[in-house]
Amino acid sequence: IGAANNLLAAMLDNHIFQGNALQIDSRRITWKRAVDMNDRQLRYITNGLGGRVNGVPREDGFDITVASEVMAILCLSKDIDDLKARLGRIIVGYTREESPVTAAQLKAEGAMAALLKDALKPNLVQTLEGTPAFVHGGPFANIAHGCNSITATRMALKLGEYAVTEAGFGADLGAEKFIDIKCRMAGLTPSAAVIVATVRALKHHGGVAKADLGNENLDALERGLPNLLQHVENVTAVFGLPTVVAINRFPTDTEAELRLIEDRCRELSVNVALSEVWGKGGEGGKALAEEVVRLCEQPNKFSYTYDLELGIEEKLVAICKRVYRADGVSLVGDAIKQAKQLEKLGFGNLPI
Amino acid sequence: IGAANNLLAAMLDNHIFQGNALQIDSRRITWKRAVDMNDRQLRYITNGLGGRVNGVPREDGFDITVASEVMAILCLSKDIDDLKARLGRIIVGYTREESPVTAAQLKAEGAMAALLKDALKPNLVQTLEGTPAFVHGGPFANIAHGCNSITATRMALKLGEYAVTEAGFGADLGAEKFIDIKCRMAGLTPSAAVIVATVRALKHHGGVAKADLGNENLDALERGLPNLLQHVENVTAVFGLPTVVAINRFPTDTEAELRLIEDRCRELSVNVALSEVWGKGGEGGKALAEEVVRLCEQPNKFSYTYDLELGIEEKLVAICKRVYRADGVSLVGDAIKQAKQLEKLGFGNLPI
Amino acid sequence: IGAANNLLAAMLDNHIFQGNALQIDSRRITWKRAVDMNDRQLRYITNGLGGRVNGVPREDGFDITVASEVMAILCLSKDIDDLKARLGRIIVGYTREESPVTAAQLKAEGAMAALLKDALKPNLVQTLEGTPAFVHGGPFANIAHGCNSITATRMALKLGEYAVTEAGFGADLGAEKFIDIKCRMAGLTPSAAVIVATVRALKHHGGVAKADLGNENLDALERGLPNLLQHVENVTAVFGLPTVVAINRFPTDTEAELRLIEDRCRELSVNVALSEVWGKGGEGGKALAEEVVRLCEQPNKFSYTYDLELGIEEKLVAICKRVYRADGVSLVGDAIKQAKQLEKLGFGNLPI
Amino acid sequence: IGAANNLLAAMLDNHIFQGNALQIDSRRITWKRAVDMNDRQLRYITNGLGGRVNGVPREDGFDITVASEVMAILCLSKDIDDLKARLGRIIVGYTREESPVTAAQLKAEGAMAALLKDALKPNLVQTLEGTPAFVHGGPFANIAHGCNSITATRMALKLGEYAVTEAGFGADLGAEKFIDIKCRMAGLTPSAAVIVATVRALKHHGGVAKADLGNENLDALERGLPNLLQHVENVTAVFGLPTVVAINRFPTDTEAELRLIEDRCRELSVNVALSEVWGKGGEGGKALAEEVVRLCEQPNKFSYTYDLELGIEEKLVAICKRVYRADGVSLVGDAIKQAKQLEKLGFGNLPI
Repeated sequence: IGAANNLLAAMLDNHIFQGNALQIDSRRITWKRAVDMNDRQLRYITNGLGGRVNGVPREDGFDITVASEVMAILCLSKDIDDLKARLGRIIVGYTREESPVTAAQLKAEGAMAALLKDALKPNLVQTLEGTPAFVHGGPFANIAHGCNSITATRMALKLGEYAVTEAGFGADLGAEKFIDIKCRMAGLTPSAAVIVATVRALKHHGGVAKADLGNENLDALERGLPNLLQHVENVTAVFGLPTVVAINRFPTDTEAELRLIEDRCRELSVNVALSEVWGKGGEGGKALAEEVVRLCEQPNKFSYTYDLELGIEEKLVAICKRVYRADGVSLVGDAIKQAKQLEKLGFGNLPI
Repeated sequence: IGAANNLLAAMLDNHIFQGNALQIDSRRITWKRAVDMNDRQLRYITNGLGGRVNGVPREDGFDITVASEVMAILCLSKDIDDLKARLGRIIVGYTREESPVTAAQLKAEGAMAALLKDALKPNLVQTLEGTPAFVHGGPFANIAHGCNSITATRMALKLGEYAVTEAGFGADLGAEKFIDIKCRMAGLTPSAAVIVATVRALKHHGGVAKADLGNENLDALERGLPNLLQHVENVTAVFGLPTVVAINRFPTDTEAELRLIEDRCRELSVNVALSEVWGKGGEGGKALAEEVVRLCEQPNKFSYTYDLELGIEEKLVAICKRVYRADGVSLVGDAIKQAKQLEKLGFGNLPI
Repeated sequence: IGAANNLLAAMLDNHIFQGNALQIDSRRITWKRAVDMNDRQLRYITNGLGGRVNGVPREDGFDITVASEVMAILCLSKDIDDLKARLGRIIVGYTREESPVTAAQLKAEGAMAALLKDALKPNLVQTLEGTPAFVHGGPFANIAHGCNSITATRMALKLGEYAVTEAGFGADLGAEKFIDIKCRMAGLTPSAAVIVATVRALKHHGGVAKADLGNENLDALERGLPNLLQHVENVTAVFGLPTVVAINRFPTDTEAELRLIEDRCRELSVNVALSEVWGKGGEGGKALAEEVVRLCEQPNKFSYTYDLELGIEEKLVAICKRVYRADGVSLVGDAIKQAKQLEKLGFGNLPI
Repeated sequence: IGAANNLLAAMLDNHIFQGNALQIDSRRITWKRAVDMNDRQLRYITNGLGGRVNGVPREDGFDITVASEVMAILCLSKDIDDLKARLGRIIVGYTREESPVTAAQLKAEGAMAALLKDALKPNLVQTLEGTPAFVHGGPFANIAHGCNSITATRMALKLGEYAVTEAGFGADLGAEKFIDIKCRMAGLTPSAAVIVATVRALKHHGGVAKADLGNENLDALERGLPNLLQHVENVTAVFGLPTVVAINRFPTDTEAELRLIEDRCRELSVNVALSEVWGKGGEGGKALAEEVVRLCEQPNKFSYTYDLELGIEEKLVAICKRVYRADGVSLVGDAIKQAKQLEKLGFGNLPI
């Protein structure tokens, strides 16, 4: 990942050095090099120093490798050709006239794809009980779409009867990006969703301090439940998926606490199952698994948060209102201008 | 290798950022970051920009990863503890008073060794015929000692009856560094040496242009032979090893050419064997192998080019006169001063 | 001015270069070099590059010479010794422990004062009619106190019967700084104030576009008058000075317009006089001058906007409420912290 | 001088910032800013930092103002129009295709000339005895032509019967540049030359240590005389001017020493006169003045060291052989290439 990222940067600077046929404005370069640690000294640098034979001076800086756009692209690519096409569409900077310059214009996508050829292949690992699993791709959800690679998910669908995947960062940020970006781009339709909850987290939402989470506290649990139910409503009402809440049991959970969650869920017709995988292994997940299998047979009204045809601002409004339950949205500062420019560049119909 | 190299650089800059207890002079830092390609734009940079919270401004630059001192250290280390000790002795820069500052003073050697833990283990591969081989470590001979790791050589010695290793860059540069640095540091005594020669290379030394190397040319071959014999003399007379010249046969070589080399070698009592491994596989190397086995049984007057007790300038003189056959040596410019300073710092008794 | 400013910067960098005995943090240097034009390329620079013998790398930048603190200091100094003392108190930066470092610690004030020795002497010029005048010192009112030098004002008071001086930038910003900073520091008590108004400016305040200012417009003039009267009230009520409004006559002003201003002023017992100096020379200013002389004989309740003993925030509140008629004041972001730090450094009792 | 120098630099950078219509290569800019002190920190800088609105990043540096080419140009200009034309011909840098870019292409010469308008006027001062003198222009002879302005010399010629001017840095460097550059460009023909000598300097040339120069030492004086006579020969034989040696008397000079110089000069028919101006004022220079007047009446075979039509290398050879008495000249390194390029750019027929 890092090598492909930095190869593009080097090819970009070399292009400028060799005469800059594309007229890239060295002050509008948006593509940065990456380093695989958080190195403060490299955040802001001036490079290309040392006179005429050593590059062209400009202000630059390094990102952390995992935050590289190349990581997100790798995870969204269907195969090596799609990877190459996506890499080619990377915008590395702009000309003085504000026209975008892409990796394809620098003829960098082939060499980058060659470096990523092996990284594109999912890693097959196994659990302690021998269940096969893929570990492949780790883009951050705060800056990218936050879930594993499309190739790994597809391979799992081909190889198993049921494929389970994780969309981290909550049923708002994580699920929304999984549905609206990954599923949409890969043409995947999930059959059902599992929302994982813990007694401890719900008590924390109910106001209990970290040190006291081990003590039974039904009041706090009650206060924390609306948070869980909101996530459930997101997945059932917004994304239209059959859903089950999996209570991930901890040793400190009391029977009364577990029963309270189950009761409240059932009162609202929310499916719920206890998961004791941590304590009992595969055996402990049987109830949950059976419920998931049952849900997969049910009818499915899968839908996205927004249509791709909407404008950028409309999509933002849809996400904020439907998923995050905002009353309204105000774009401030440069945001409106940036949204307009992105639409002008033809990026209006992409998922966000 | 690159990660360990850059970790040290980041720890160095972080030390300065945190108050610089060691009083490192930011203009006398000699340790550079490394990148695994030849990126012109990064050769000379100013980093630590962006105000108070983003490092301390200084002039810096990137080396290519394979040229990193860490690569050489990895190859010279006996085990993880020796690696750690050697990493700790790396000089990263100097104080204003010209005192050296080491990686150990920055407490960086442990974290670096942890990153290199796996890289320290030799890679076992096999030839098409199933012969086991280690591929491990690639320091450049122009800036380092130019041969594979001590751990791989030792493991090969333990596992096989005969261990063959390569010391690239000629029987002057390559052999000298292999003997004086690697063998000396690892306590290895080679049993015999093979000097590889080709008809084509000797004709090239005899003045033939590249395009004409495929044509028989006994005159040119004759003119090129002294070069080979000089290399033989280096190994037999200077290093005191039983030696055989291996003629690496090419399809364009004529019988007359091959015979000429053999004849000239035998006239001077130089052992010689034809190697047809390229054309015939293991079978084609049998004659050479038998000759090597024979030589390994012979008495051995192994010795180094110079004693470690000599001064730096004396060692340089010994190498230049004995190996490169110089008439004399003049240290110019800062070289005398640098040699004196290195001796003052206690590095006078190291191999060069 | 520029030379003294830059000498201090050079002495500062030389101090760091020579070992930095004062432990100045090169990232907390607040003193910048100055150049006598608005040179975009010099706003943000990295200097001290070029290796060990050419300074110590740091981020820096150039200000415009007239905006230099040295200009303000020159104007506030009573004599060469006071100038030297003030220069010595300049804070050039901070140590890592946030202690301020002054020009006096760098022993720079003597050399700076020597460069400014001649600049400290007021320039005597004359009007077309031979009236003597001093032109001396030009600090911007937006970043400094905005009026001429104390030495020139004092010299004028010694040499003439009446000394007239200008405090630009309105009877809010300009007058406030003249009274609270310059008069307070020099121990001057003004005898009377003249507020200059024009028909054109008042019509502009009343909403007339620039192109239409030449046409009579009594309605707009009426709408603009409150602005003038507010300025008058500042000077009479806040600063306690006898005041006259001088109407600076333009050829396009109509009699009706001039009469309207006079009438409105008289209705509110505001003194007013027509000044026709532009059209008629000294003769045209006679009425105004006689009124000023009359006011100078009147009792005088001169006072400042705030007491020096107040805290920084209280002074800011006093200025905003009393002079700019704000309802209240909110310090945002770093402002509160900065005010506290300045008070901690002992600068709480300075005029603002 | 400094302001005009820096204005050109600012206009150059602004041109690049505004789109760089002239395609100046920011790494081939030869025009530097100037500062009126020796400020180590500014020798090598990176400027134009701070993002898109603050210039274009490049490597730069500051010269000392007196070393600016503008100083030399001011001294060589006949009038304001000539000054403007010369400023316009300044080469500020090169394009990527190595074409020179001039100040005129940046339309900078007018604004620069406006800044220099007053500096172009000679300063008239007077000696203690009331003799008028111009002090105007101070280019260094090591980097420029080293003598005062053409306008001052011309004005002196117009106003007085005899105009005396100084060409510092010896009768080799100073006189050669005065004759070949200044006289040639201004169309001036000197009537006679005065070579100033001191007993002390000649004894120093004869090997006497500085501390012993106050003691009579006829042997050392004799050994130092050939140096003086060589200078005399330069002026009489190479430049063809009637010449007198002026012995500038010091209190420590003995009669025997003064007589020795006079005797040796007369033996070789070299005119000589004692100057006691330091001790006796104008009266002490009478003998020398009378000799100068006499020489001015004599015939004059004024000529230059070389013809303008010669190539650059030939001119260098002429100067080295004829003035510095070299046996031959070798151009090393880039010098030949640079000479060729300068001739290609059409600068072959300029004085050197």
